[in-house]
Formats: sequence, C-alpha cells, structure tokens
Amino acid sequence: MTQESLTNELELLDKYWRAANYLSVGQIYLMSNPLLRNPLLPEHIKPRLLGHWGTTPGLNFIYAHLNRIIRQRDLDLLYVCGPGHGGPGMVANTWLEGSYSEVYPHISEDEAGMQRLFKQFSFPGGIPSHAAPETPGSINEGGELGYSLSHAFGAAFDHPDLIVPCVIGDGEAETGPLAASWHGIKFLNARRDGTVLPILHLNGYKIANPTILGRSSDEDLKQLFSGYGYEPLFVCGHEPADMHRQMAKALDVAFTSIAEFQDETRNGSEPMAVPRWPMIVLRSPKGWTGPKEVDGNKVEDFWRAHQVPVAACREDESHRLILENWMRSYQPDELFDISGRLKPELRALVPVGNKRMGSSPYANGGRLRRELRTPDIYDFALEIGQPGSTSGQATELFGRYLSEIFRRNQDNFRLFGPDETASNRLSPVFDVTDRTWMEPIKDYDEQLGRDGRVMEILSEHQCQGWLEGYLLTGRHGLFNCYEAFIHIVDSMFNQHAKWLKVTRKLGWRKPVSSLNYLLSSHVWRQDHNGYSHQDPGFIDHVANKKADIVRIYLPPDANTLLWVGDHCLRTWDRINVIVAGKQPSPQWLDMDSAIVHCEAGMGVWEWASSAGEPDVIMACAGDVPTMETLAAVDLLRAYLPDLRIRVVNVVDLLAMQTQEQHPHGKSEAEFDALFTCDKPVIFAFHGYPSLIHRLTYQRNNHRNFHVHGFNEEGATTTPFDMTVLNELDRYHLAQAAIIHVPGLADRHPELLDDLQERIAEHHRYVRENGDDLPEVKNWIWKGTE
Amino acid sequence: MTQESLTNELELLDKYWRAANYLSVGQIYLMSNPLLRNPLLPEHIKPRLLGHWGTTPGLNFIYAHLNRIIRQRDLDLLYVCGPGHGGPGMVANTWLEGSYSEVYPHISEDEAGMQRLFKQFSFPGGIPSHAAPETPGSINEGGELGYSLSHAFGAAFDHPDLIVPCVIGDGEAETGPLAASWHGIKFLNARRDGTVLPILHLNGYKIANPTILGRSSDEDLKQLFSGYGYEPLFVCGHEPADMHRQMAKALDVAFTSIAEFQDETRNGSEPMAVPRWPMIVLRSPKGWTGPKEVDGNKVEDFWRAHQVPVAACREDESHRLILENWMRSYQPDELFDISGRLKPELRALVPVGNKRMGSSPYANGGRLRRELRTPDIYDFALEIGQPGSTSGQATELFGRYLSEIFRRNQDNFRLFGPDETASNRLSPVFDVTDRTWMEPIKDYDEQLGRDGRVMEILSEHQCQGWLEGYLLTGRHGLFNCYEAFIHIVDSMFNQHAKWLKVTRKLGWRKPVSSLNYLLSSHVWRQDHNGYSHQDPGFIDHVANKKADIVRIYLPPDANTLLWVGDHCLRTWDRINVIVAGKQPSPQWLDMDSAIVHCEAGMGVWEWASSAGEPDVIMACAGDVPTMETLAAVDLLRAYLPDLRIRVVNVVDLLAMQTQEQHPHGKSEAEFDALFTCDKPVIFAFHGYPSLIHRLTYQRNNHRNFHVHGFNEEGATTTPFDMTVLNELDRYHLAQAAIIHVPGLADRHPELLDDLQERIAEHHRYVRENGDDLPEVKNWIWKGTE
Repeated sequence: MTQESLTNELELLDKYWRAANYLSVGQIYLMSNPLLRNPLLPEHIKPRLLGHWGTTPGLNFIYAHLNRIIRQRDLDLLYVCGPGHGGPGMVANTWLEGSYSEVYPHISEDEAGMQRLFKQFSFPGGIPSHAAPETPGSINEGGELGYSLSHAFGAAFDHPDLIVPCVIGDGEAETGPLAASWHGIKFLNARRDGTVLPILHLNGYKIANPTILGRSSDEDLKQLFSGYGYEPLFVCGHEPADMHRQMAKALDVAFTSIAEFQDETRNGSEPMAVPRWPMIVLRSPKGWTGPKEVDGNKVEDFWRAHQVPVAACREDESHRLILENWMRSYQPDELFDISGRLKPELRALVPVGNKRMGSSPYANGGRLRRELRTPDIYDFALEIGQPGSTSGQATELFGRYLSEIFRRNQDNFRLFGPDETASNRLSPVFDVTDRTWMEPIKDYDEQLGRDGRVMEILSEHQCQGWLEGYLLTGRHGLFNCYEAFIHIVDSMFNQHAKWLKVTRKLGWRKPVSSLNYLLSSHVWRQDHNGYSHQDPGFIDHVANKKADIVRIYLPPDANTLLWVGDHCLRTWDRINVIVAGKQPSPQWLDMDSAIVHCEAGMGVWEWASSAGEPDVIMACAGDVPTMETLAAVDLLRAYLPDLRIRVVNVVDLLAMQTQEQHPHGKSEAEFDALFTCDKPVIFAFHGYPSLIHRLTYQRNNHRNFHVHGFNEEGATTTPFDMTVLNELDRYHLAQAAIIHVPGLADRHPELLDDLQERIAEHHRYVRENGDDLPEVKNWIWKGTE
Repeated sequence: MTQESLTNELELLDKYWRAANYLSVGQIYLMSNPLLRNPLLPEHIKPRLLGHWGTTPGLNFIYAHLNRIIRQRDLDLLYVCGPGHGGPGMVANTWLEGSYSEVYPHISEDEAGMQRLFKQFSFPGGIPSHAAPETPGSINEGGELGYSLSHAFGAAFDHPDLIVPCVIGDGEAETGPLAASWHGIKFLNARRDGTVLPILHLNGYKIANPTILGRSSDEDLKQLFSGYGYEPLFVCGHEPADMHRQMAKALDVAFTSIAEFQDETRNGSEPMAVPRWPMIVLRSPKGWTGPKEVDGNKVEDFWRAHQVPVAACREDESHRLILENWMRSYQPDELFDISGRLKPELRALVPVGNKRMGSSPYANGGRLRRELRTPDIYDFALEIGQPGSTSGQATELFGRYLSEIFRRNQDNFRLFGPDETASNRLSPVFDVTDRTWMEPIKDYDEQLGRDGRVMEILSEHQCQGWLEGYLLTGRHGLFNCYEAFIHIVDSMFNQHAKWLKVTRKLGWRKPVSSLNYLLSSHVWRQDHNGYSHQDPGFIDHVANKKADIVRIYLPPDANTLLWVGDHCLRTWDRINVIVAGKQPSPQWLDMDSAIVHCEAGMGVWEWASSAGEPDVIMACAGDVPTMETLAAVDLLRAYLPDLRIRVVNVVDLLAMQTQEQHPHGKSEAEFDALFTCDKPVIFAFHGYPSLIHRLTYQRNNHRNFHVHGFNEEGATTTPFDMTVLNELDRYHLAQAAIIHVPGLADRHPELLDDLQERIAEHHRYVRENGDDLPEVKNWIWKGTE
C-alpha cells in the first residue's frame, strides 16, 4: 500500500472513530436530539448521568483498527473487552456495523434508532453500562475486573481459526487473576488452538488514582512482558493521525507474526513450544478527545475523565455548552447522513456478515455448540452386590467415564483443575490424554504433552476463567477442584451466574453448556491436610443464586456420581455443583437403583428401612454422612430391634426446597411422604447444618429436623475423628435418634451411656495410635436382618 | 572473612541443615526411636504417613542461611513461609533454636522431646502439617496458597527495623493473588517501612506437574522480575557445598544493598521513589537430599517427592530400609548429643532471644500491639433534629472520624481499599493523609504522597493480604470495599477466620486487632453500575464461621455507623463486617439514642411505633430497608390510623440467633418481647432473605416472619426501582403487612389495589423519565402524628 493510500485510509478510519466516540457520548448524555440538529437544551439530557467515558475512546480506537485488519486479512476476531465500563463503546461499534440493529430491530440504523440507542443506555428498562450479556459480540462482562485475558484464552483453545484481541485496562491489570493470566500463552498450542493478542490499554488512571503499570517506564514494561513470554509492541501518544499510523503499523506487525507462527507450526512437523507471541501496549489519554478541563479541573488524561466528565449539563448552562461543543467537535454531519445512518464510505470500513465482531458466532457460543458425545453409563457401572458389601472409589469410576468423553470429543471437551486431577483420582483420563504442556518437557516427565487436553495450572482463577471462555464460545468442560479452595472463585461464580441469568432472557443468545464443578477431596476427607483445607461452604454460596441457574448434587457413591456427572455434562445454561469423595468407600446402589434414585432426587432407601410408619427418619446427604447414617442405623438396630427406622437419602439438594423456590423442589405431599409431618428427622449433612434449615424452613416437619454437619471443627487427624469432632459420626447420630424419639431416652438411658463410652474409647484410641479403631475402619453394613 | 573461615562456617551450617532435615523426616515418619539408636522397626513408624517432604529441605536451607545473616548483622527478620506444606521445616528449625520448647515445654530439647515432636506431627490431637498458627514464628498458614508475599508486605509497612524474607514456592507463584503481589514493592517507603526480600524457591514441581516458572529460562525470569522492579539474584544447583557458597554470597549482596538503600533514604532528604530492591531466585531440587528413586521411579528432583517419598515403610521392609538409610545419611550422631540436644557448635549458629525467627515478636503481633487512640464519637455526632427530618451521609461522617484516627495514630493504622476510598465517600481522610504512592508523581496529581497512609491498589486480594500482615504484626486497620466485590476475598476471609479460631486456643499467641470490613456502595446503591455490582452475599458467607470470631453490623444511619465503627476498631481477634451506605439519606437516631440502640444490638423504635401490643411488627436491618420500612409505616398509618404497628430495627445481625448459637444472641424472652410469639413480622432485610430465616428458625415466632430482601433481581436503574424489583420497597412492604395481619386484606381490598396502582405508576414513570417519582425522591418521614 502506498503511503498516500494509507493516509487516505487512516483519515477515513479517523472519521469512523469519531462516529463511535460521538455515539458513546450520546449514550451517556442524551435522551433526544441525537444528531444535535437542534441546539442542546436541558430536556435533551438524561436526568441521571451514568456511564463511563474514560476508557471508551481508546476502546473505539482499537475496534476501528481491528475492523481494518479483519477486512485486510479476512480474519475471525473475537473482541474481548476487559474494561467493562467501556460498554458505550462496544454498543456504539456494533450499532455502526449493523450487528446491533439485527439483534435489536427497534434500535434501527436511523435517527429514531439512534435516539433509542442513546436513551436506553443506563436507563430503567434499558441496558447496563458495561459490555454485558446484552451487548452483541461480548463474552466478558467486566463489571468485576480480572478475567478478560483468561476468557480470551478459553475462547482460543481448540478454535484454530480464531484470534482473540483482548483489551486489558491498566486498572484490571492490577488484579491478581489478571496478573496470573498472562501465563495462558504457555498453554496454547499453535497447531490446534487459535491465539490471543493482548492489548494492554494504559490510560494511566483508575477511579481516583494513577495505575501501577501506567506509571511504569516503557523499559520496565518491556522487561515484564518479555519475561512473561511476549514480544511487546508499543503504541504511545495522543495526536490522532500519528496514533492511527502507529496502531496500524503495530497491528500489521502483530498479525503478520501470528500468521507466521501459525504457518510454521501448522506446516511443520512439530508444534513449536512457546513462540514469542506479540502483544500491544497502547498508551493513550484517559477520556481522549473529551473535555480537557471542566471548572478549572484537569479532565482529559486524568482520572476525572473516568465516568461522566461534565456532570451538571441539565442544570448548568456552561456545562451544557461544554458537552455540546464536545459532541459537535466530532462533526456529526460529516459522519451520519440525513437519516442518521453512518455514511457509506465509513460503513465500508466495517467487515461484513459474521466477520463483524458484533456478529461473530464465537461471541454467541450456542451458535457453534455441538452436543457432547456421551457413552452409555451402564458401560461403566460398578457391580456392587449387596448394598454396602463392596468398596469403590467414586471419582476413579467417573474418571473412567471421562476418559471415554475425551475419546469421543477430541476437540470439544476439556478438563480443568489446579494441579489436583490426579489427587482427585480422575487419573484414568491420562490413559487417553495428557496434561497440556508447551514449556520444555524432560524425558522423565509423565502425562505431559503438547496435545494434552487436561488443563492444569495452580490457579483456580485461571481454571474457572479458561472454562468460562471455553463454554461461552460453544464447547464443554468440567472443573475439578478441592472443595475448600473453590471459594477462591466465589466471585467468578457469581458473575457467571449473573451472566447466565441475563442471557436466558435474550432470545438471540443461544444456550451454552453448563459450567460443571466436581468438588472432591472434600471436607470429610481432608483429615490429612487439616483445618485450612476443610470448608464445605461453597454450596451455601451457590444456593443464593437464581433457582433456574443452579443445581447442587451430593451423590452418595460411585454409580450415583456416574449418573449425576453424565446428566450435568448434558445440560445447558446452568451451573452444576457435584460434591463427591475420592476415597474407597462402601457402595450402596447398583446402576438401576442409582438411576431411579437420582432421577427422583431423593428417596427412601427401602432396603435399609423398616416397613411401615417410622419412629424416626435417618436422613443423609453426601457420601460420608450416608455411611455414618447407615452405621448409626446398624447400631440402633442392634440396640433396639423394634425401632422403626426410615433411611432417606438426598442427592439433589435443592429439591429440599418448595416447588415455588426451585424447579426441582418437592411438593408438600411428596416431601411429607418422605419426612412425615411429626416424626424426628436426624439429618446427617455434608455441609454446614444451617443450609438444610434454610432450605426446609417452610416444610411442615421442619421443627423436628435435627441436622448434624460441619461445625467448623477441623484438624489434622483421622477421617473418622473428623466426623466425631463435628458430631456427624455414627455414635452421635445414634444418640440423636435416641434422644429425639419421644420417651426412648427415658426408657434406655444405658444406650446413651454406651454410645458416650464408645466416643470416649475412640478418642483414647485415636490419640494413642494415630489411626481409627479397627471396628470403625473395617465396618461393613449389616443390612436389615 | 577469609575463604577458609567461610568454608568452616559453611561446613557447620551444612551440619545444622542436616539436623533440620533429619528432624523434618522424623516428623513425617516416626512415632518412636527418634535418634535411630535402635534398628528401625515397623512399630516405630506412624500408621498414617502424612506430610510434605518436597519443599522442606529448601526451606531448611534458607532458614539456616538467614540465621547466619541475623547473627552477622544483628537483624530483625520475620520468615514468611509461603510453601505452607513445609510445616515440618518450620517446626524443626524453631525446635533447634529453642523457640519451640519455650512455647511448648513438653516438647523439650532432648530425646523425649524429640520423640514427642515427631509423634505430634500430623497426628490426632497434635499439630497440622502446615506452617500454621501453632507454629512459632509463622504469620502465614499457606494451606491455601497465594498470600505469602502480601502478608510479608503488610508486615513490613511501618516497621522500619524489620526485614521480611518471604519464601514463595513456584506452585504458589502461579496463583493470581501472588502474581499481583510482586507490585507491593511499589508501595514501600524505605524511610518509614521495613522491607521484604522475596525468595522465589523454584523446585520445579507441584503435586503432579512441573511448574510454569520452574520451566522458564533464567533469562525470562530475570526479565520478568526486573520488569516488576526487582534486581534478581540467582542461586541454582544441587551440590550442597556449592549451594551454600552461592546462597551465602547472594544473601550478603542482598542484605548489603537493602542496607545501602535504607541508609541513603533515611539519611537523605527525600525518600527514593522505588529502588531496585533485591530478590533471590533459588533453584534447588524438590525433595533435595531425599531418596533419589523408589521402586524404580524417580523421586528426588521430581513431583514424586511432593508428599511422602517412600510410603509403605511399616509394611514393606525394602521401603523401611530406604527410610532408614535416608535418615542415617544425615548422620544424626554428629548432630545431636547423647541427650538428644543439638550439639553446642551447631546451636551456636542460631541467633539468641527475640532475634530467633521463631521467637520474633513480629510473628506474634499481639506482643507489639499498642491500643488504638480513638477520639470521642460525640465529637463527630450528627445533630439530627426530629428523626427522619435531616439527611446525612453515613460513610462521609465516618470518614471524618477516621481522619482523626489517622491524626492520633501516625504509625499504627492504615486504611486499605481497591481504589474505592473516595467513591465510598471516606474522602475526609485525605484532609489528613494521602494515598501511598512511590512511583512517579505528576504536578497535577491529587492526594498522592510518599508518606500517604491510605493503601489503594485495584486488587482486593492485596488489600486483604496487606491488612492481614499488618494486623498479625500488631497494628490496626480497616478495609473499605464495594460490597459485591468483597466476594473476591471470600477464601482469604475463610483462612483468616480459621487462623483466629486456632490462635484463640493458644495462650502464647497474644490477641491481635480485629479485621474490619466497611462494605459500602452496597447492593441497593449500585443502581448505576448494574447487576454485576449487586450482591449482598458476603454476610451469608461470614455467618458460617465460628460465632466467637464473627460480627455483622448493619447500622441504619450515620450516628449508628459511628458507634459501630468505633466499637469494631477497638476489638481484637475478631472479624467485623459493617455494611453502610454512602448516599445522602434520612437520619434516625441522635448519638444518645444510637449508643443505646447499638449496644442493645436491636430494639423497638418507640418514636415510630404505636403504643401497646402491636398488630404487626415492621422489622428492618440495613439503611435502605430501614428507610423503606418507615415509608411503609407512613403509608399504613395514612390508610389505617388504628393499626398498631411496632418498628424494630436490627443493627447487630447475629444477635438474631439464640444465645447458644452466638455470644450476642438474644435470649428467648428478649427476642419474644421484641417480635412477639404470634404477630406477623414484615422483615425488610438488606441481604438475601434466607439469611434471616437461617438465623431465626429456632425462634418461637419464626413461622410469622415474612422476609423481603435481595432476590437476585438486579439492573441498571434508579435506586428506588432496585427496591421495587426485589419487592423491598414501601409499597410491597405495606402490602405484606395488610396481607399478613389477619382479616385486614378482606376488610380493605381497596388498599391492596391502591398499592398495586402505585407500583404500576412507579414503573411507568421511571421507564419514561429515567428517574424516581418526586414523591419517592422527596419523601420525608411523617412521624407518628
């Protein structure tokens, strides 16, 4: 391209940028008079000015230049907008390219549409101020900062034709999750994956502070990002024509080297380890092209440009004049035709069809989603004989199922975990695939491979962020994690749940696969690692979210885990949490029974229960509580052969709620049929007892619920001692039954004494021998006879 | 020092290191025969082998070398041990230096003590496997990884005489929080603060994987850490004598340059901006000096060394022989005298008294803690006139109080926040101090200073980690944060709560100041930022923890916030969560009334209530719910002058629980006196309604509690519309009262219709005008007349 044609092209591009900036300001300020065809009056201005200008012109600048690259090179780009507060920019650009009006026809490409575009922004019943689910082309909300680059990598995995430019604000770059996510490049296989082009957008300020990286020298930044493995390219300045030239050149260099790396790798024999992928450092003023000063205070290139740079435009004429001059400085008449439509020579700058970033199918992953190919769970079913007579490892069995998932879904499924996949006993997957590893591999390394599909990094944030990006662009996956440490991503879970809630109301967003958690190494089996590793509270956190979105499963053994895991992997638009143990433990249900039980969500275990109306219900949820409950039933039957005991097991925890509260909720009649209206219920629960109370307080028999669970009594000790410390063990459960069946304790005080002595004996033995009593370790369910 | 004397010194140091390694292995394996005076038999070996060898020899190596530096330079060092799994090493070293036995006299410095030292480790009733609260010299548990370096910086702030060597494992270095924490160096003022010496300990492997940084080249690491602002020094190898020489030299260089920086700064006129502080990259084999192979599998320098390198020592003679040879390779007879005590020439290598890292008062901050100097809250009290007649901004008033705290506590208090201090309206503090800023400052910057004491970084993880480090070393502080995003540190909160629970049982750990959260910009006042910013669930998470540790306060106005904030800042060993609004809102209680109300925790607002037995209780907790409740009372009085309404406000949320559940819990009689046993309670709650049910399900009148709160209905809209979307507004509350007072709805169906019409009118108005109805915006409490 000649220098002259480049100059012409960049002049047009500058006009397009001005159009995007104009529309961004209009969204923040105007309710009417969108093209300023009339002098600006107070009533044209929204009564509440909400939105963020500061980051927006830079985002618009990047968007415009990416459009140029797409057209030149016919690329598929997904724009991940880290500065979520730049919502006006994303909306403006997708409107300019026509994507917005296709999705929202009432926001048409004319003056009336522009007026509605402006008014709806940050307006009741309208759209939020962020790059949100409502925003075409977005997979990253960015209201909470830190996850853009993880999302970008997740999107690029197994999408060889995709390049993901990811804009990271210098505020977001201070967060922990973002700081670690630069390493994502070391998990990217240039042959089978697309790539990510990070664009660190330094505008220097946050809400009311400079930023750390914004004040770092170019030399320090160059070293930092070289150290992370990138080749940083710098674009710095504020004069538009110069900046356009710099940016065009930097993107040409970046996309050329991406193309070269991909070409070398894909046409060579061996994927390169980790090429020095390019990244861009863009230093541009915050609030670029906006008011330089307001009321004598510096605004442009300062933190005062963060939100609404000039605030009192309705009340104060001088402010209104600043706004009007600012908007007119973009010369809207040069940009939009008489109908309010972008002029044809500018519209010609945007790509067409699905190449438009607002119309990318990658940004609406349900459009790309293929069903997961799942095997028949009967192929993996564990033969269990009599209930309780055999031992099995639930997660190991599920690992075998997952290995078959890998076999059948070679580019459509990944397993994520923070270095805990083997520890969680999912190792059978390594018969089929390796861990992804692109750094040097030594000859004695095991289960590492360039083409591995198990993603392990010691960062729960990256696991979650990668998986979200992977799902939102149309694929399937599972996150396995120690139960206690999944709290590290509580907040990311929140944001994903919110995303799903909103997308469910948007017809144009097609369903994406559910986000599935398998929490193992759970609270009752972290006896060896101690108190810091013992916390079952994630499910409390999950239960706060909209019932449509969340499911919580506590399978009591291997076959039930198989059903639950298989079920969850086939669902969409949900977040499924499965808590299951990894240690050998008694198996209760054969596959036929497991299916019936899991489909019901909860039920009476007839084979463990007395016939007829019970005197007491021994209820349980979770694998260890189930075992302790059945051991307590053994004790009670030995003590009191005539006591009528009903055993109820709960797999689908939220089915405890009413039908009004949760779609899986049991009806009043169903619930009462299981738990009665007046009999004592001794409930052995995996988590904090209060969760059961919270789920069941509306139930008729709630006043008779006596819940045993985790009481925040942890230690490094034996597995059984963990249950004793929290009174979830067989002895305390049996005591509770005796105490709560009316009259029983009075008639049989010796039983309570005997149980107390067993507890004391346990304490003595375990502190002396460092191991559980043989009668506990070797316990086998005696059955009903 | 001559080469020869250095060689002699390092030979002795190597013996000391062997002693520490010997004791570490002994803790993992042995119950008896601690000095191997007899051949090793199965019964000497613990039945359950729990613990982590892999990281330990490196930690011991560092500890030994730091002892040398302390003695040479007479320094105060606090050893922060990031690899928490290296617990055996921390315990071994503090025993060798005598600190351990001083704290735990039964673990004496002789063979019997050694035997108990070994047996207690990871044993029921003993100590956990991590560097835990039980470990002298530790302020960082490290069970959950990511926070060591933040803790180290927090410890160094305002401790000019302290240097904090912080060992970061290469596993931990992959986490997000740790990746961001390297920036801490840019907040350190060499004049008034101590400093941190990060020691990145690359042993190359995690549980079952190589590590990202372990496989990075030295050149990449040099660039990465130079980019973060450090001068990295490398110590790499495996041959002990060579490694001792390298490490001694690196530490000499590092401590010399620290001394020079401090000297220049403290004796110069202006603190240097950010010197290139040293850091050390230590590459040493995982499981160094342990078995090289077991059963033909590589162990040393591989991930198999992570936990217990040779596992079947009780059952398998060949394994037992490996263990015995391994332990004897340290030549215990050369290290310990006949009584089992460390030989005098080795004991001479450790510092004395409080210079021993296990006895550092900095590691037991309660020993250093000075009381916070607090002003009289009456000096800040807001004159409010008639309840509801004036408007005030709660956090702004509290900001004025905090500015006085800063004035009176110039080196003993800091305020932390993720760039939200001004947004949360605490700006009065900037009249007294600045934000800490050590990078370049521009002439137009505001409220930035080298000596600033407000710590702002856009990382909730750093805010929390710094504050924890600051508190655990004896100071006071407050973390202010947007309510929704405090979930980012859910997991750090968990770990700190666990830490406090354990320390409370340890007499030798002196109380530290409480960790105080001020959550503002809360769910009901994030209307402008939208759904992603709306989440009140942190208090649900907090309520799961031990009642001794946690408090939750929801002050309804400015004077109550003042009392609550002042109270919390004067407590110790707790975590206090305060949720309070920042927007102008009606003020209810003068200071006298606020004190009475807050001390009670909850109470009837007589001035808003009818005399005598009520027909309905209108209860509220939180500032916005309180306002909506009083507005609902206004409506109800206008409709139904004879309806007897009682208004109950709750400030101290956990007082809703029973006395058995929480130390602040109200007795049955007290609770029933407020809420009756049979009258409808319309409860307007700040958070998720289920929390109130969970706290009150044991109460007599619980079945009549009708709770309105956040139902996960969020949007970018007006403040009042947020309450309407969630049915927490005055209209829905009034409707609920009419519905639940028996017979009322039947007698007055027109009232329900009228309220429904008001709701519809609100919806119409807000969607048309983008603002709340004037009658809502301008509402003023009418009072009881």
